[in-house]
Amino acid sequence: MPVPSLETVDTVLRHADQRLDQSREALFALLRIPSISAQEVHREDCARAAGFVRDRLVALGFRTEIRPTPGHPVVVGHLDGPPGYNGPHILFYGHYDVQPPDPLELWHSPPFEPQLVDGPRGKRVVARGAVDDKGQTTMFLEALQAWHDAGGGIPAKITAVIEGEEEVGSRNLEPFLVDNKAELKSDIALISDTNMWDFQTPALTTSLRGLTYVQLTVKAAKRDLHSGLYGGSAQNPINAITRIVGDLQDANGRIQLPGFYDKVKPISNAVRAQWESLGFSEAAFLADIGLSVPAGERGYSALERMWARPTADINGIWGGYTGQGAKTVIASEASAKVTFRLVPGQDPDEVFEQFKQFVADRLPAGTTAEYDGGHGSPGVDVNVDSPWVRAAQSALAEEYGKPPVMMGCGGSIPVVVSLKKVLGLDTILMGFGLDDDQIHSPNEKFELACFHHGIRSHVRLLAKFAAG
Amino acid sequence: MPVPSLETVDTVLRHADQRLDQSREALFALLRIPSISAQEVHREDCARAAGFVRDRLVALGFRTEIRPTPGHPVVVGHLDGPPGYNGPHILFYGHYDVQPPDPLELWHSPPFEPQLVDGPRGKRVVARGAVDDKGQTTMFLEALQAWHDAGGGIPAKITAVIEGEEEVGSRNLEPFLVDNKAELKSDIALISDTNMWDFQTPALTTSLRGLTYVQLTVKAAKRDLHSGLYGGSAQNPINAITRIVGDLQDANGRIQLPGFYDKVKPISNAVRAQWESLGFSEAAFLADIGLSVPAGERGYSALERMWARPTADINGIWGGYTGQGAKTVIASEASAKVTFRLVPGQDPDEVFEQFKQFVADRLPAGTTAEYDGGHGSPGVDVNVDSPWVRAAQSALAEEYGKPPVMMGCGGSIPVVVSLKKVLGLDTILMGFGLDDDQIHSPNEKFELACFHHGIRSHVRLLAKFAAG
Repeated sequence: MPVPSLETVDTVLRHADQRLDQSREALFALLRIPSISAQEVHREDCARAAGFVRDRLVALGFRTEIRPTPGHPVVVGHLDGPPGYNGPHILFYGHYDVQPPDPLELWHSPPFEPQLVDGPRGKRVVARGAVDDKGQTTMFLEALQAWHDAGGGIPAKITAVIEGEEEVGSRNLEPFLVDNKAELKSDIALISDTNMWDFQTPALTTSLRGLTYVQLTVKAAKRDLHSGLYGGSAQNPINAITRIVGDLQDANGRIQLPGFYDKVKPISNAVRAQWESLGFSEAAFLADIGLSVPAGERGYSALERMWARPTADINGIWGGYTGQGAKTVIASEASAKVTFRLVPGQDPDEVFEQFKQFVADRLPAGTTAEYDGGHGSPGVDVNVDSPWVRAAQSALAEEYGKPPVMMGCGGSIPVVVSLKKVLGLDTILMGFGLDDDQIHSPNEKFELACFHHGIRSHVRLLAKFAAG
Repeated sequence: MPVPSLETVDTVLRHADQRLDQSREALFALLRIPSISAQEVHREDCARAAGFVRDRLVALGFRTEIRPTPGHPVVVGHLDGPPGYNGPHILFYGHYDVQPPDPLELWHSPPFEPQLVDGPRGKRVVARGAVDDKGQTTMFLEALQAWHDAGGGIPAKITAVIEGEEEVGSRNLEPFLVDNKAELKSDIALISDTNMWDFQTPALTTSLRGLTYVQLTVKAAKRDLHSGLYGGSAQNPINAITRIVGDLQDANGRIQLPGFYDKVKPISNAVRAQWESLGFSEAAFLADIGLSVPAGERGYSALERMWARPTADINGIWGGYTGQGAKTVIASEASAKVTFRLVPGQDPDEVFEQFKQFVADRLPAGTTAEYDGGHGSPGVDVNVDSPWVRAAQSALAEEYGKPPVMMGCGGSIPVVVSLKKVLGLDTILMGFGLDDDQIHSPNEKFELACFHHGIRSHVRLLAKFAAG
């Protein structure tokens, strides 16, 4: 197969435009499966989502298998490039699992009944997973579909790896990559799980933060106690845990774990100047979520805090009586879920050890601490000096009429680390989400225009790859 | 009716012994009604419990009514004394409502299906409300029943006031007392809602702590956020609330509210010496609940901390994701329920204001605080220089063969304050609970022997009162 002509690319793009309704329906079908990887009760739903993805890949001509792991399965598909293909062997990674939809009562429509609703930027898809990552994965599948239907076939050599545990830390993915290293050998990884700069401006993401997640439980008495009789004598685990985790930051927002900042690199003046030139409005960023005053570490801009500084957030806390009215009880235990976002250089296991030391230093006599989790992934810098990154820049520039912003990302995609470590792959992070997409929150949405441009951008990128 | 003879008292006591199974069945019937005053869903159950108590009083010859309040109703019954009665007009107070049974999974049997089980001290009744206060109220009713059946009639003039909101702060009781002041005029109040010194040793309680209860909610962003994108820029309400309430005590257990100790009276050397002479074993007290190290304010003994020093306990906390696994979310709000136990002299409303100031001093910019509750009652000292207290001492000494310990109580019974304030009544606090009864906790129990001795002690006390 020759390198696709510009005419062919246009034909495929037009076909993608024409089948947008079908593309959206394909996304809806996947969104209707509540594949919540964190919740055991949804194990079967995760299996159904894997089956759905397998069927799509099979229809596109991939040799596809659902491969078991100790957790949720991985869908693996292989497609040989066309005869004479000179481009890179692409490993496309996506995930079919989603975050829990809690708190349910804040959704305007059921999280697993996708809706197409009007928004200020046109139509949008509302559902859990609309963008993260079912929407972004579907964009790539739809670009393949457009090439398959209207371009004389998919013009590239592709291995697809679609996993089901991204939202719970991808703990089984790296062993899976190790076990199947030879089979998964390829030249470049491609992931759509990140954001654009803004609605009009595409972006490639060049750094990701890492993450250490841990659940802490503090225990004291062997049963719940009456606070009148035992108050003042018995340790109260809620008082204790709040005292501990309430001390995670000092008044300047500095995280208090011993040694936490030892491996955090300072931000260079060049990088700082480049980020300042982006004209990011912290006020608008905060206003969008109903805030006006920035939190966090003093002395850094919002972009610096998000892209180049680590954080500590308590994601959940519970203990004692949480029902209606008063119950004057001293609970026997209390728990908190804590996430540390890490920058490249910090070691997630070291941070877990630092957290345990931090807790031990503050744990009152007569209480005990138990831990769950403690796993994580390091932050990562993307190698931007690559022809494939330049291909992606060019594809996005053609689609949007302006070059993409090269930006950091505050979130974590552990697989990027694993792909580098196990398979030696650099990753192109080309995503089409927006800051206000409410991923991991109620009413997650994906702008239909972003979905559409995303499909088209992938169509263009495949042509660039095919050109070698 | 003449003053009851010793023979009559013995006859009534023997009858009380013989009907112990029936007395226990009467308690079981009341325990089967889940009259949880804190939970709106149990409103009808509270009404059923009130009806049950009314029926019992009617059967004893009381002129009885269920009287509405803005919350749960009050049962009021009047019984004239026998002709020529010279003793005090007794106002007996009890409550038919109970605490929520949460956490349900820790109960060994359903909380509202009372069980008679074997324990180290003989049979015991296990159910929510077994002792607090259905068991203790039933003791008094059973003493009346024994007099009614075998003593030629109840030998005293009694007004019974059995309310349904003690476990939610008795907020409607004081207005009810005010509205019905003339009707409720009497000479002395009698309450069974406190503990014995130990299983062999009776007690009268001479001081109670007060209470301020408040629920704090800290809010930040208008929706839940992804901790990767917003961590480090958006205020996290869980980080904020833990930082605030984690600071309630300093490292020495001193409560940090501004002005909190201004009205706390020092413990006199005489009182301190008296309490020391009781030979209280802090180690055994703590061992019973699985602890070895005392918490709380440094420099005070366990009895001093419980009876004469105020406390601050977080009774419940919740926010963010509390389900299985990880969810890397920044919640939009977090809440905590806090109870301050107060000593006589402290003003509960002032303490609520101090708490609001304490929170305001620590609330990060960009977050807001909302309050629910804030109500409470002051601590109270009982007037022990009274012939009726001496009558109770004598009744207990005869029943147990040794005089009662005159002790403090760390808990709160707001009605004692209202009875003094509105009706000018002193209260006799004669209770038969034990420290290990697990009131407000799973598997609340009442020793059958305590129940039995309690009925007999009330039989004796009624005879003392009748003697004038």
